Amino acid sequence: MANLEQALLDQLQSVIEREIPMCAQMGIQVKDFRDNGLAMQLPLEQNRNHQQTAFAGSLNALCTVVGWGSVYLLLRQHRLPGDIVIRRSSIKYLKPVETPQVVARCLPIDTDQQAHFVEMLQDKGQAKIDLRTEISADRETAVSFHGSYVVLSNE
Amino acid sequence: MANLEQALLDQLQSVIEREIPMCAQMGIQVKDFRDNGLAMQLPLEQNRNHQQTAFAGSLNALCTVVGWGSVYLLLRQHRLPGDIVIRRSSIKYLKPVETPQVVARCLPIDTDQQAHFVEMLQDKGQAKIDLRTEISADRETAVSFHGSYVVLSNE
Repeated sequence: MANLEQALLDQLQSVIEREIPMCAQMGIQVKDFRDNGLAMQLPLEQNRNHQQTAFAGSLNALCTVVGWGSVYLLLRQHRLPGDIVIRRSSIKYLKPVETPQVVARCLPIDTDQQAHFVEMLQDKGQAKIDLRTEISADRETAVSFHGSYVVLSNE
Repeated sequence: MANLEQALLDQLQSVIEREIPMCAQMGIQVKDFRDNGLAMQLPLEQNRNHQQTAFAGSLNALCTVVGWGSVYLLLRQHRLPGDIVIRRSSIKYLKPVETPQVVARCLPIDTDQQAHFVEMLQDKGQAKIDLRTEISADRETAVSFHGSYVVLSNE
């Protein structure tokens, strides 16, 4: 998906803003999609906590949505319809995040994982995918997130 | 803490609203403190997702803050100062939540756990506490959350 069209990222931005009002409140923005995965960001300002670093709830929401967006792009790429929900997640807050823009990147879904996911969805009408998302600060991993998403084919 | 004063709950409400702007945006409100623990709630309306149920990011934030608040009350009860941060958490989204008010309750901290926490904080200047928070819908557990919080004595 290295040459993913900007139009698809713009579509993803519209979807999250329209469908999940809290994404707009937090200022979550689709940043880019590269070989190292989909990135989204939010501004620290309205997402700060009592220590002037990023609020854990906002960091988790950002990671949740980046993973959701990665599955959304995967479905669009394969022209598959489906409802995406997160089933479970775990998160480690390793370091405080205090960059003005907080960037979360979902690690790429490898070819085998994609093939298995598509096959399951087409055969069973349901598929699960486990994704890893990270937030960096000062070139170190500040937040490590694992999310398990389920897609139900809505055909 | 069954007879916890309303004044302390009002203080907690002020703290989260003042210190974490996103709590006010989400409409997080301290609900009550009973034998079965501290409860907070948020309205579904501004926290909905694309399926008109509660957004996972808001549910996680609510659980994170209820746990944080439970540690806050524990510190106040023992007249201990300290900075509270969440270190890690895991969450299972078992059922969609579509009640107009979404209520999360942090299970009570038992006497042994309280004593150990207070002893560690006083002796080492740092203590960790693991808490469980649940969100119910239609009398069933809809969300199950485990959070691990660390308190650093700021004396």
